[in-house]
Amino acid sequence: MITSFDELISHVKECGKKTVSVAVAEDGAVLEAVHAAREQGIADAILVGDEEKIRAIAKGLNIDPDEYRIINEPDHTQAARTAVKLTHDGVADMYMKGLLDTKGFLKSVLDKEVGLRTGKPLSHVAVFEVEGIRQLLFLTDVAFMTYPTLEDKVHIIENTVAVCHACGIENPKVAPLAAVEVVNPKMPVTVEAAELTRMNEEGKITGCVVDGPLSLDIAIDPEAAAHKGATGRKIAGDADVLLFPDIHAGNLVYKCLVHTAKVENGCILTGTKVPVILTSRSDSFQTKVNSIALAAVVAEAMKDQN
Amino acid sequence: MITSFDELISHVKECGKKTVSVAVAEDGAVLEAVHAAREQGIADAILVGDEEKIRAIAKGLNIDPDEYRIINEPDHTQAARTAVKLTHDGVADMYMKGLLDTKGFLKSVLDKEVGLRTGKPLSHVAVFEVEGIRQLLFLTDVAFMTYPTLEDKVHIIENTVAVCHACGIENPKVAPLAAVEVVNPKMPVTVEAAELTRMNEEGKITGCVVDGPLSLDIAIDPEAAAHKGATGRKIAGDADVLLFPDIHAGNLVYKCLVHTAKVENGCILTGTKVPVILTSRSDSFQTKVNSIALAAVVAEAMKDQN
Repeated sequence: MITSFDELISHVKECGKKTVSVAVAEDGAVLEAVHAAREQGIADAILVGDEEKIRAIAKGLNIDPDEYRIINEPDHTQAARTAVKLTHDGVADMYMKGLLDTKGFLKSVLDKEVGLRTGKPLSHVAVFEVEGIRQLLFLTDVAFMTYPTLEDKVHIIENTVAVCHACGIENPKVAPLAAVEVVNPKMPVTVEAAELTRMNEEGKITGCVVDGPLSLDIAIDPEAAAHKGATGRKIAGDADVLLFPDIHAGNLVYKCLVHTAKVENGCILTGTKVPVILTSRSDSFQTKVNSIALAAVVAEAMKDQN
Repeated sequence: MITSFDELISHVKECGKKTVSVAVAEDGAVLEAVHAAREQGIADAILVGDEEKIRAIAKGLNIDPDEYRIINEPDHTQAARTAVKLTHDGVADMYMKGLLDTKGFLKSVLDKEVGLRTGKPLSHVAVFEVEGIRQLLFLTDVAFMTYPTLEDKVHIIENTVAVCHACGIENPKVAPLAAVEVVNPKMPVTVEAAELTRMNEEGKITGCVVDGPLSLDIAIDPEAAAHKGATGRKIAGDADVLLFPDIHAGNLVYKCLVHTAKVENGCILTGTKVPVILTSRSDSFQTKVNSIALAAVVAEAMKDQN
């Protein structure tokens, strides 16, 4: 079971070498992260984009562009299509966003011919190592699905549990979060949380233990759980997956962790044929590297399944 | 301008002595906090409840019960009514919950005869001192109002801005938060945030600067704000008030701060005739003391206004 990004990166090195395909790779921050991932033995990269720009940016960063396979395609839409096809065809194992807008990038992910659709909804998972918390936390969805329905939440759980399994967490504990830990008919999110718990008990959601509604303190703090007399619950400070009511709650907690706590984090898009790395401008260098490592671990697990 | 709880407590000591009236005071954790507040010169207390039990608990905590005025009223409802009347009549300056359930306590707060109604909706404010953040953060509403409407949010801002003013923050910056910092018609909370901003610009919300929608990083992290090119905004990492979309988002961020960051915090209920202290079992000793100090500062400001 992986409990830190150091362990995650060590695990990646034991797996067969993975390759990330980068769409519109002429992006300094992305190239830096991709290069660090290569130097650390996490993954190789194929760079698709404007070759001239890629070479110039690489040289500016003291990166030797000749270490990489570069496919020259200056048009953004075409570059994304070419890059995603490499993963669709199994030439690369993960797909990463470079210097194109999220909309254009997602269009390539969802392309019916060369894209990475599985028929399931896509969701985002942000994995956190937080000082003082023993287990990794899998936050979802903090960036992609805005107002998930009950059905969407089932898919989000399935997508995220697969990532937990890839990290060696065999039976992850999933906490559908709310402001309170009891069902209140005036708060629909608590009713849905209880319904997800029931579906898990009835075997309709498998490979994990669901227990909600839960407040965040009972989900992540064993002492708080004990203090509140929550020891009879299936989750008492040991939640792996934090399922948020909506994107506002999720994103605000995500940014609260990044900007006020001591953390390491990385994130990927799931529900796709291969893991998709969709880091944002504001993510740190290390977050980008961690995201590539996380994607590699998930890619390895997917390979085992196929 | 107060920027820490140490400063807040120093300020309280410069004000005239305040008194807190405690409803159903036979509660060890509450008595400990009340006693610490007294010893630190923050406030005196009048203890209303079962005198025999109060004396026994006090002695068990090495507190001399004779230091306090005790009003013997073993019945919880009557004790709350008596205690709230003391603040209603100006004998005490703040009202605090002891060993009775929140519902019964709020019933006394809202009592038409002896309660603390002002005609305005009540809201909760949690004040945080967070390591690495220069200003105090006023989080609202993380515990009381569940799904505030636009009109409710105007009242929440007014209630909270009054608390900021009491803390010497003359023109607090109010950030209506969301997952994103731009208006998206598919996310109603962003539309409402923009509307609150407009109302502030038109002088319908005064005594503060409102700028929303804002993501949490732009609200509290000047570096992140600069990185995202948010320097043209009215708020760029220097928000005082964090206004949450709903209680789930608010409560989850609140608990995230308490359980993963280095913080000091205290909270009160506002929109009442006098500040109301409604701490919960799970609040730490220090949080309870801080809450009494916060209430005292607000009580002083209210006295100045009357």
